[in-house]
Amino acid sequence: MQHRSAPPDPSTSEPELDGAPPPAAAVQRERAAEPHAAPDATASRRTFLRGSLLGAGAFGAAGALGAVAAPELAQAQTGALKSTVSHYHLPANDKTVHWGFFSKSLPPLIEVSSGDFVTIETVTHHANDDRERMVVGDPGVESIFFWDKTRKGVNRRGAGPMDASLFGRGAGEGLGVHICTGPVAVKGAQPGDVLEVRILDVKLRPCKNANYPGKAFGSNAAAWWGFHYKDLIEDPKPREVITIYEVDPTGERDYAKAVYNFRWFPQKDPFGTLHKTIDYPGVPVNHAYTKKTTNILRNVRVPIRPHFGVMGLAPKEADMVDSIPPSYTGGNIDNWRIGKGATMYYPVSVPGALFSVGDPHASQGDSELCGTAIECSLTGTFQFILHPKASLAGTPLETLDYPLLETQTEYVLHGFSYPNYLADLGPKAQSDIYGKSSVDLALRDAFRKLRHFLMTTQGLSEDEAISLISVAADFGITQVVDGNWGVHGVIKKSLFVGEG
Amino acid sequence: MQHRSAPPDPSTSEPELDGAPPPAAAVQRERAAEPHAAPDATASRRTFLRGSLLGAGAFGAAGALGAVAAPELAQAQTGALKSTVSHYHLPANDKTVHWGFFSKSLPPLIEVSSGDFVTIETVTHHANDDRERMVVGDPGVESIFFWDKTRKGVNRRGAGPMDASLFGRGAGEGLGVHICTGPVAVKGAQPGDVLEVRILDVKLRPCKNANYPGKAFGSNAAAWWGFHYKDLIEDPKPREVITIYEVDPTGERDYAKAVYNFRWFPQKDPFGTLHKTIDYPGVPVNHAYTKKTTNILRNVRVPIRPHFGVMGLAPKEADMVDSIPPSYTGGNIDNWRIGKGATMYYPVSVPGALFSVGDPHASQGDSELCGTAIECSLTGTFQFILHPKASLAGTPLETLDYPLLETQTEYVLHGFSYPNYLADLGPKAQSDIYGKSSVDLALRDAFRKLRHFLMTTQGLSEDEAISLISVAADFGITQVVDGNWGVHGVIKKSLFVGEG
Repeated sequence: MQHRSAPPDPSTSEPELDGAPPPAAAVQRERAAEPHAAPDATASRRTFLRGSLLGAGAFGAAGALGAVAAPELAQAQTGALKSTVSHYHLPANDKTVHWGFFSKSLPPLIEVSSGDFVTIETVTHHANDDRERMVVGDPGVESIFFWDKTRKGVNRRGAGPMDASLFGRGAGEGLGVHICTGPVAVKGAQPGDVLEVRILDVKLRPCKNANYPGKAFGSNAAAWWGFHYKDLIEDPKPREVITIYEVDPTGERDYAKAVYNFRWFPQKDPFGTLHKTIDYPGVPVNHAYTKKTTNILRNVRVPIRPHFGVMGLAPKEADMVDSIPPSYTGGNIDNWRIGKGATMYYPVSVPGALFSVGDPHASQGDSELCGTAIECSLTGTFQFILHPKASLAGTPLETLDYPLLETQTEYVLHGFSYPNYLADLGPKAQSDIYGKSSVDLALRDAFRKLRHFLMTTQGLSEDEAISLISVAADFGITQVVDGNWGVHGVIKKSLFVGEG
Repeated sequence: MQHRSAPPDPSTSEPELDGAPPPAAAVQRERAAEPHAAPDATASRRTFLRGSLLGAGAFGAAGALGAVAAPELAQAQTGALKSTVSHYHLPANDKTVHWGFFSKSLPPLIEVSSGDFVTIETVTHHANDDRERMVVGDPGVESIFFWDKTRKGVNRRGAGPMDASLFGRGAGEGLGVHICTGPVAVKGAQPGDVLEVRILDVKLRPCKNANYPGKAFGSNAAAWWGFHYKDLIEDPKPREVITIYEVDPTGERDYAKAVYNFRWFPQKDPFGTLHKTIDYPGVPVNHAYTKKTTNILRNVRVPIRPHFGVMGLAPKEADMVDSIPPSYTGGNIDNWRIGKGATMYYPVSVPGALFSVGDPHASQGDSELCGTAIECSLTGTFQFILHPKASLAGTPLETLDYPLLETQTEYVLHGFSYPNYLADLGPKAQSDIYGKSSVDLALRDAFRKLRHFLMTTQGLSEDEAISLISVAADFGITQVVDGNWGVHGVIKKSLFVGEG
């Protein structure tokens, strides 16, 4: 999701951060016995584009996780090898999240080595749309959303000024909205490297309120930054509408059901600021002022596609970066394919890489038309593999300058209206980006990236690449609501049958 | 595919048609015994959106076709019913095709009744890119592409003036390029009705040249109207490149392989006109002037998706309509999902509906980026079901004003930059459309159509529809090369589980 208003002049934006890094004890660390050899970056690169990279990674990782509590085998007899990697668990709470921005200045919560695993809790910034179902009873979420007359659990929300001198909405001004857990630093990562992030597992976060046992919930906001907003046909116009969905935290039921919806009613936050629209994240909705409509979307099942809307690295171009527009280091890509089984490759922009993840979604369609998905807290398990710059020469990752997605069957290349908007648009990039996007531009970028990908990874001529793109690649609209609009190009791995 | 040049002023464009309707004997007609009851439009409408319309249609149709030569059953014992429908076969030749335009003035080749079947041969307008592989030895195709110093088999190619006074390219000026077979009139069809067209089968047309036994071929042109053309990185720039693909006409092998490619070289047609670019369809390529590059796209298999790029009805808005820009009555939609098993619904615009089909493709990706697909002759079998206007009240088809696609699992709604560009853009629509399109506009139209579809067929409120679109509908880029750019919205049938 995004807000279109101008972000602050960087000179007025203090890099004043709250949510200081937690004491080491806040992060759980496990030693995991790896039954296979530790991931070997060189071998991985060799098999890149052979359809085996993801397979080996996911299998090895699952084995490693499963092996934590498993009895050791008699290694001598089996010839099995043992090495040791770490598996961390990052809870989500007011000490482990940063809200609404990426920053290269954020101290990392943990530093992992290439090959390590991290289970990371992520919390939706829409949880206060229905506090009873998505906040109450969950200590970590309660700590994040805590807000009384004197204090907010997480004060800064967005990349704007802390004193709210720009719009008066609140600290950070909501110029950036996503609750992100992190950052995670990767030992030795330097600009020019590529960080591979494998999503090994994604779980829905169960509701902890005893009134809703065995359930989980998400929120969809059809908001003022949606593609539909100025194009409504029913009255009143305009209006913002929030729909609460129920999902099954066990994952057994593979669909979401709508519970009720309500129109946004001007909400006064605990500090006394009135929010006429959804202009600041985490404002607690007082349902005494809303009218709930139940019995909606009857007999409709929304297939779940759990994924992370925001996942990426801190960019070097600015100190405080609005979390809404996606860019070359990832961020708010909002592609529903970035879920379990997917692998992302990011160009490292700053030392340590500084990975953060948030904006969890239970489901979203290509385009995310009304402004949001089913925003729903999730917990992911990730493995991090660092590909140092010196090892990239001659490999398909050598010139990677955008976030690349690999699934079991496809490569998905992310084009944006402006591939690196912070550099492309100059000093006012963070405000200008909201007025300059088009799907046409994003398609142009996706085409160029896919052409380059095919020419470098497959050794095709430009003519071969262009013909193949036209007859075999599918371009879809990722999102038109995040300032820097996105188009993804999808190319199937099965096209490439090898030399055999 | 499209050309961007301005079409003629209608006043200079004579509705002079060649390819006069054939004698009745040119069209083969079979009587098909229908083992099931004849299609009942009312029943069909009742089951619309229950997931059974396509199923019943395709099953019934396959049964009918299969029953042509089947022994009659002992009806008394089985309770089976018998009714009679007709099954026509329309060959493709110089007498049965119209090239590069739709026209409400074209006399129909045949008139069918609702429920009848028609097998229709279609021929790619790119066959002369490799005459040996796609024309020679095939009498129907040879008759269409015949061109010597004194005569063309089909003179008019496009909606432009017959005397080529506009650009000097040739009769019709290439303002419209697709060889279309038809039109087929549907008995009783009137403006306001809806014509349902079920694609029951699609077969690749085998090469008839004895030098290439058991093969079939198609052509992909990366041409000047492609999205890539002004954005090339290798020299020479700009350039047009044609890639010839081989496919398996039996359909056993489900992929295409590239055979060779060549750069377009200025070609003099048999009338003496020089074509510096691909500016007129069907110009025979003299390969003495081209340089073939073989051994291209090695180890690459392009999955086939046989479908019809052009399929639709004659519009009422103009007499001669360029075949390139798609519109509310269909035409050059270029969606690869319009293949076997798909059903299209079109609003009838003129008496008789006047259905034509052409621009056959072996495969295409969403966006058709370089300007064309694998252009490859196909034969389709279709069933036509007429839904009279009077029967539509209160049904999901009541207000249908665009081409709707239904597959086994999905509804696909076609948005265009201008939903009815002939009406939307006024008298100069046929030239203006080439300068006014954007994907953003097409997404806008697709969104509006999908919202309307969900509100009318599912009885959803606008708020319900918008939320559902954002969390469960996928928007893809159909094409950006046909003047009137397209975005399709896809909604899965499995969302709607019924009341049970």
